[in-house]
Amino acid sequence: MENGSQSRIKTMSAAPKGDTTPKGTNIVWHDASVDRQGRASQRGHRSAILWFTGLSGSGKSTLANAVNAALFEQGIATYVLDGDNIRHGLCKDLGFSDADREENIRRIGEVAKLFLDAGIIVLTAFVSPFRADRDKARGLVEAGDFIEIHCAADLSICEERDTKGLYAKARAGEIKDFTGISSPYEAPESPELNINTGNQDLESCVNVVIKQLQDQQLIPAPHPPVS
Amino acid sequence: MENGSQSRIKTMSAAPKGDTTPKGTNIVWHDASVDRQGRASQRGHRSAILWFTGLSGSGKSTLANAVNAALFEQGIATYVLDGDNIRHGLCKDLGFSDADREENIRRIGEVAKLFLDAGIIVLTAFVSPFRADRDKARGLVEAGDFIEIHCAADLSICEERDTKGLYAKARAGEIKDFTGISSPYEAPESPELNINTGNQDLESCVNVVIKQLQDQQLIPAPHPPVS
Repeated sequence: MENGSQSRIKTMSAAPKGDTTPKGTNIVWHDASVDRQGRASQRGHRSAILWFTGLSGSGKSTLANAVNAALFEQGIATYVLDGDNIRHGLCKDLGFSDADREENIRRIGEVAKLFLDAGIIVLTAFVSPFRADRDKARGLVEAGDFIEIHCAADLSICEERDTKGLYAKARAGEIKDFTGISSPYEAPESPELNINTGNQDLESCVNVVIKQLQDQQLIPAPHPPVS
Repeated sequence: MENGSQSRIKTMSAAPKGDTTPKGTNIVWHDASVDRQGRASQRGHRSAILWFTGLSGSGKSTLANAVNAALFEQGIATYVLDGDNIRHGLCKDLGFSDADREENIRRIGEVAKLFLDAGIIVLTAFVSPFRADRDKARGLVEAGDFIEIHCAADLSICEERDTKGLYAKARAGEIKDFTGISSPYEAPESPELNINTGNQDLESCVNVVIKQLQDQQLIPAPHPPVS
């Protein structure tokens, strides 16, 4: 990191001498470089939204966090949005009615767009069962910015795992409208990635996502092996 | 940026041999470093919320964007939240009733907290006239994470500038509940910074903010002059 005590002055131009407007109001603001492109140039990678979708227990959060860690080790700016940091904060006013679920995904899409604009590779890990809601999130950004990753574990495997005990409760009727049991999951028709997180080990799932980012030239390609 | 194709494997441990649980479900996840502290160590700076508050025309956005540019030139990860990227996106469902204004600031506080957690210095530039709403945003994070910056230009100067023509409309009764004219502005009682953005030039205002970040050891101090 360079010391910018001199260079930062270059970012603004004071009002010309003799100008009688109030001080500080006639600034010519050179902000062209402090945008998404400028951040990408400075950081050496581009930003994107990695939208993980799938049944409860399909491994969305596990995979998103593993990809996050892999990218972090490469010095790439990332962030994971998931139930832990969204449902208790930004969306704590929302319940699980159809309208509230839709609003939940809408806000997540808007926040993901802000992170995208900030030059961050943002990973969202929510069931997001409805195609229309996911497509609205996709529609907020440009083509190529939105990478939909279907964590396509079979329902039987998700239910067998039942990592949070939710399937048992749903089968017992203690949870209404539970995706896969009493509410539909609309699988993506043409996601950028379709990963069988039911049978494929985590490391190879991570590698599939990383390769996608490299292929889209969002992050640097690996160095060729030394021969 | 290093090639992490080998190093990322270190971030997870596969299930022990002989384990019969489904693949990918018994991962020991070493995520301790992919948190705020880990990001700070990697980037060489800490994160914070810089909450700019003040009357319309007081220079909040101008100052926030100038600080943003100065920090960007030092390689510091930053982002500005303002009306342009919030009111047309995350908060486009909200109007200007008391309840909606409160919800607007609540969401901005929650989003700022996410950026803080992501290791970003996030700058928010909203009038945010009510003390209680700002204090709620402050209460979401730890002491030291929230830096309230009062852009304390006199109302007369803001109205004279009237950069968006809003004061004229408010005086004509075309805008109801306009802060400073027909709705109160509750100045912060003990903000971290109180800057006279009415009479002080932009460059010196920027320097005051930068010095505060250096003094709080959020960003590196400038190199001492070579003697």
